[in-house]
Amino acid sequence: MRNVTRDNITAVFMGSLGDDLDPRLKQVMGSLVRHLHAFAREVSLTHAEWNTGIRFLERCGEISDAERHEFVLLSDVLGMSSLVDMINNRPEGTSSSVLGPFHISGAPPLPVGGDMRRGYPEPVLLVEGVIRDPKGNPIPGATLDIWQTAPNGMYSSQDPGQDRYSFHGLQTVGGDGRFAFTTVKPVEYTVPSDGPVGDILRACGRHPWRPSHLHFIAEAEGFRPLVTEVFPEGDPYLDQDTVFGVREDLVMRYEVMPAGSFPDTGFELSGKVPDEYLKVRFDLTLVGEA
Amino acid sequence: MRNVTRDNITAVFMGSLGDDLDPRLKQVMGSLVRHLHAFAREVSLTHAEWNTGIRFLERCGEISDAERHEFVLLSDVLGMSSLVDMINNRPEGTSSSVLGPFHISGAPPLPVGGDMRRGYPEPVLLVEGVIRDPKGNPIPGATLDIWQTAPNGMYSSQDPGQDRYSFHGLQTVGGDGRFAFTTVKPVEYTVPSDGPVGDILRACGRHPWRPSHLHFIAEAEGFRPLVTEVFPEGDPYLDQDTVFGVREDLVMRYEVMPAGSFPDTGFELSGKVPDEYLKVRFDLTLVGEA
Repeated sequence: MRNVTRDNITAVFMGSLGDDLDPRLKQVMGSLVRHLHAFAREVSLTHAEWNTGIRFLERCGEISDAERHEFVLLSDVLGMSSLVDMINNRPEGTSSSVLGPFHISGAPPLPVGGDMRRGYPEPVLLVEGVIRDPKGNPIPGATLDIWQTAPNGMYSSQDPGQDRYSFHGLQTVGGDGRFAFTTVKPVEYTVPSDGPVGDILRACGRHPWRPSHLHFIAEAEGFRPLVTEVFPEGDPYLDQDTVFGVREDLVMRYEVMPAGSFPDTGFELSGKVPDEYLKVRFDLTLVGEA
Repeated sequence: MRNVTRDNITAVFMGSLGDDLDPRLKQVMGSLVRHLHAFAREVSLTHAEWNTGIRFLERCGEISDAERHEFVLLSDVLGMSSLVDMINNRPEGTSSSVLGPFHISGAPPLPVGGDMRRGYPEPVLLVEGVIRDPKGNPIPGATLDIWQTAPNGMYSSQDPGQDRYSFHGLQTVGGDGRFAFTTVKPVEYTVPSDGPVGDILRACGRHPWRPSHLHFIAEAEGFRPLVTEVFPEGDPYLDQDTVFGVREDLVMRYEVMPAGSFPDTGFELSGKVPDEYLKVRFDLTLVGEA
């Protein structure tokens, strides 16, 4: 088009697409380009700002590798990851929340009632709940992939002081759908802020903190996998999570349980917890595959 | 915000920005995020599509280096580069057009009337024009950075068979503002399509071709630098440039000049062109700095 102008370029772009294009691809590319063009027009983007944007994307590429996913982090801090979670959420199930960059696959089996605390001196946290379908029936044989920070605020993949699967476990529930394990309270932490995404947070006057949380991936045959996190009432960052991951139905409460009340049976630590401990109960509801 | 939802997350994002944020940064980030969120909602972006997008950006990062600028190419084929050009265009001056990825700085001086053809067998092309201000006055001492493809469709930086500055020159005009040089006709060519951006073009049923063009950067003290290209009437890709760079006022015409009519003086090739040759006249108008 020799007559391309700032007003018709979006239509010219759409006209450049092949006639037999997959309709979904046409819809997604068309919407993306329409919004990118509208953005540039709306703010009258300058060449210097365009250059800053290109250089920013190049820097995200330079810092990324198999362990570091700066484009995921960018999506997280812009709220895109959470928005995609919420768009695809099904109201009859537990809300999903961001996977985050610290999940590692291959976590060791953790029997029901097993312990992830590994002798840390912090108070014991007892976590239990049931994995259910939307009618409230337990889902036998569901699996729960669990991971969290150590008390120093670091995931094992960030911390040379922890072994690879420290505070990671994969639990398979029995016929009653019940999961249960002991651990320590996860702590709040900052997303990596030493790269270009950290520069954006600083430029925007934003902090890099996330509220403390337990990560879960619950899976069962015939159900949609659920990637989620649960957050404690009272966490200082609950209302200002830098990746916008908190949902009303994912907020739980740690109960302080009196000394001597730890269950006598059913836990690896049964008989070994004379003091006060913390307890949280949280059920997870999976929805059927579409 | 524990009450973040798919409908309020854009407002929650805006609320996360610092109170004393630079107003322009707030405007640009706000508009960008508003449009990205609107895009995701409009198409109900799935997790699989989000993953494809993240992986695409990571691949653009992986293929990029000091010579290869895949994010620039992405901006080019989505029409963003041209849109930014047109947004910042001033109607009293010559239109700008995409810089493209093949400009190299440090081109050798090319005297007025000098030759860039270097003995290629193709017909001589004589290019001339005047660099003017918006009132039509010549701009003495303006510089013109010129680059183009060799007859094989490649820029010197892509082609081990050419030396570094083949078909590159930097001309400084005299008191009359006139530039003039001889060269060969540039040819149409394809943008690099062996990376992720090439995959997008193929998936969208688009071709990678650009119409042939001469690249110019015209600069003079007190004036805005002009980055532009000129395109010949009749080029098969004039109306389907894959980077949307053609503007009505950048279309020129090659005149076929009769044998024996090449100027006797003023050109390095004067006295050495007995045959037919091509001639194009194209004036460039620079606008004052804001």
